[in-house]
Amino acid sequence: MRKILVIGAGKSTAVLIKYFQDKSVLENLHITIGDISLENAKKLANKHPNTVAIRLDVFDTDSRKEAIKNADIIVSMLPARFHIEVAKDCLSYNKSMVTASYVSPEMQELDSEVRKKGLIFMNEIGVDPGIDHMSAMQVIDRIRNQGGKLILFESFTGGLVAPESDTNLWNYKFTWNPRNVVVAGQGGAAEFLQEGTYKYIPYHKLFRRTEFLEVEGYGRFEAYANRNSLKYQKIYGLDDILTLYRGTIRRVGFSRAWNTFVQLGMTADDYTIANSEHMSYRDFTNSFLAYSPTDSVELKLRHYLKIDQDDIMWDKLLELDLFNPNKKVQIANATPAQILQKILMDEWLLAEDEKDMIVMYHKFGYELNGERKQIDATMVSIGDDQTYTAMARTVGLPVAMAALRILNKKITTPGVQIPIAEEVYTPILKELEEYGIIFKEEEKEYLGYNPDGVKG
Amino acid sequence: MRKILVIGAGKSTAVLIKYFQDKSVLENLHITIGDISLENAKKLANKHPNTVAIRLDVFDTDSRKEAIKNADIIVSMLPARFHIEVAKDCLSYNKSMVTASYVSPEMQELDSEVRKKGLIFMNEIGVDPGIDHMSAMQVIDRIRNQGGKLILFESFTGGLVAPESDTNLWNYKFTWNPRNVVVAGQGGAAEFLQEGTYKYIPYHKLFRRTEFLEVEGYGRFEAYANRNSLKYQKIYGLDDILTLYRGTIRRVGFSRAWNTFVQLGMTADDYTIANSEHMSYRDFTNSFLAYSPTDSVELKLRHYLKIDQDDIMWDKLLELDLFNPNKKVQIANATPAQILQKILMDEWLLAEDEKDMIVMYHKFGYELNGERKQIDATMVSIGDDQTYTAMARTVGLPVAMAALRILNKKITTPGVQIPIAEEVYTPILKELEEYGIIFKEEEKEYLGYNPDGVKG
Repeated sequence: MRKILVIGAGKSTAVLIKYFQDKSVLENLHITIGDISLENAKKLANKHPNTVAIRLDVFDTDSRKEAIKNADIIVSMLPARFHIEVAKDCLSYNKSMVTASYVSPEMQELDSEVRKKGLIFMNEIGVDPGIDHMSAMQVIDRIRNQGGKLILFESFTGGLVAPESDTNLWNYKFTWNPRNVVVAGQGGAAEFLQEGTYKYIPYHKLFRRTEFLEVEGYGRFEAYANRNSLKYQKIYGLDDILTLYRGTIRRVGFSRAWNTFVQLGMTADDYTIANSEHMSYRDFTNSFLAYSPTDSVELKLRHYLKIDQDDIMWDKLLELDLFNPNKKVQIANATPAQILQKILMDEWLLAEDEKDMIVMYHKFGYELNGERKQIDATMVSIGDDQTYTAMARTVGLPVAMAALRILNKKITTPGVQIPIAEEVYTPILKELEEYGIIFKEEEKEYLGYNPDGVKG
Repeated sequence: MRKILVIGAGKSTAVLIKYFQDKSVLENLHITIGDISLENAKKLANKHPNTVAIRLDVFDTDSRKEAIKNADIIVSMLPARFHIEVAKDCLSYNKSMVTASYVSPEMQELDSEVRKKGLIFMNEIGVDPGIDHMSAMQVIDRIRNQGGKLILFESFTGGLVAPESDTNLWNYKFTWNPRNVVVAGQGGAAEFLQEGTYKYIPYHKLFRRTEFLEVEGYGRFEAYANRNSLKYQKIYGLDDILTLYRGTIRRVGFSRAWNTFVQLGMTADDYTIANSEHMSYRDFTNSFLAYSPTDSVELKLRHYLKIDQDDIMWDKLLELDLFNPNKKVQIANATPAQILQKILMDEWLLAEDEKDMIVMYHKFGYELNGERKQIDATMVSIGDDQTYTAMARTVGLPVAMAALRILNKKITTPGVQIPIAEEVYTPILKELEEYGIIFKEEEKEYLGYNPDGVKG
């Protein structure tokens, strides 16, 4: 039997394990699930005959090395910063590995050694990064093979709540790490290309520079810019592209309301609030407003941020209980972002019977035979339940499929890789379709930002 | 003769040197001016008989140690980060020293050794920090000695252009390091106390939360919050104070217009702009605005920041040539802040015959015999010319006066000090009056933020 070691039994691992288990007889697979919590590992193993659960502390060098040595391929579903320890052992014991995380500089450094040994360290093969790379490169390569020249590439992903579980005014619930949502966009200006000019949006304007997206059957969404849209410009071979933009999808109206938190300063994570533990949600809100002996927190906020009395945004703030004088923060030495996260988690947690949704939207603008054309590709995936979520499915399946193909020597290019090569994306995108992860393509009139070629 | 070593012959040193030279016969002083540029040192020495100029590279350990060893007291007018090298040598050779800079953690660490040796390392004795400490503590101690209890302390300083040289729409010119002006307020939320509640202002709101100040004979000013108003709460003994606020003074309307740069993202200093060298001022402005093939940069900016067509703020932007397509940035790999600084320096440099101005404003609210009272203290100092500026005077004189008093054993408390003790502030504030640096005090009705004691 071929032995697969999966390290980390977190949220996104359920679908991945099930994929291996379903293939285990046909593909002759034995699965070992290692986690710091044996209980978590056992839950995922689910008493499947070809699966064992073990306790694996990634910082216990001996047991980590032992587990890796005994496997044929390693899948690391640990938090990104822990992959490097696993990667070094994989190198020592000549094992290939797969992760869904961004390639860290330390991981990239291993590239020449990995290649020399003929191993494959496949990274960024979850949903975003992952399915976005594969689905984009498939269309980009096709356009190029037809002799077309890319002039625009915009790519958007969102982890959202499914329409049937969408029950709050924000049309949003946490389907992934809440902290990442609260601090999203921080750490520098968003940079992108529009019609050949570099554009910059500072954090405090990010949520006021959205654009709309329409997905057939799912209605309207909006997207705000990711921090670095240019990261994959070279890797995708888009050096001369005029427009390059990557963004995050939300339901329409989310960003305008979220901007309230940004403007107040509630998303800051670089200092702690005095006496945070005993303050009420109302006190927290008031700490960002000027003192007044008479005016209410409500009116001060409305005036400060110029929120009209009939603006529906206001109801979104009320829904979160931002002005409640009785609910307490109950976190000592908390940053504003930590307090805001707590307030949001009161309202934005998915209930047991609720479902999540992944939405992806690509726009490809290109010139072919003197004509400007555009293809829009969209994908929507809705979770089955709280275990087999859309997030777990879209992250876990491509990871599992890549691991099996590496084991079967169908993916063969050695090195520290991301899934942008045809040998990777074609078979995996095809197999993903069996699981309902399907991109719908539509030819559109080329829009861009300057369809008539006016000199700006 | 008593030997004074002044290290650093920068802008603010002229008045300081002249003070020592004027006292040199009476006080039996010999002055050595050491600077990395012998020419600069010579210019300041001005062929005065009791003064020598030497070349002193603070990183050349041998010559630095030699110069320090031969002096009786050392005045370091170097940039703040270089003081620590001087301080360590002062400790080795048992010399006291004086600086106008904030006490760094490394400097603070020397405290017990400095005290053990009976030396005095006096810091923060320029204008701000410096005269602000002394003038505040003088009033605070007086109120306390009368049995009063401080309930409010607000303190504001501004380095501005003198009214007679105030010739632009911003009512502002650079009278000090332009870079510090461009990045002022960055690095975290401004934190302060209002009527017993902690308040926080994020950077992007800082310039919209100003308050007005009236200075008799000089008209109206405004002030925005400094980052950390609470820094001196313990040191001043204001633990139970209700309102504590420190701010920076500008002429009315400056902050509202400056906010344009903040909102656009032009003050960011954490990334570089692509192709900055060859871009025009107009291109730079446009890089913060969405692309449009038809709309002008002007209209895009007006719309983005909602600037009405008759808003005088607009003329301030025009005055700076922000929309000029012909003026080039000419700095490679520049951050937005570096480019903005260049644009501002075209317009905001003091001409040879122009004068600067220092304005300081303190408010002291207190309870005495059951009554709430308020004292406002203001100080305005106007420069003589471009050498004997108000900045050089208000920074240099207190440094020089402290050095002489340490030499004369009139200031005697050893350790790493700041000028908050009576033995320091009383004689120095008195002597500063001879140089026109005079605080005018006025008793006011107590205002605070809740004069009627309403429960907010």
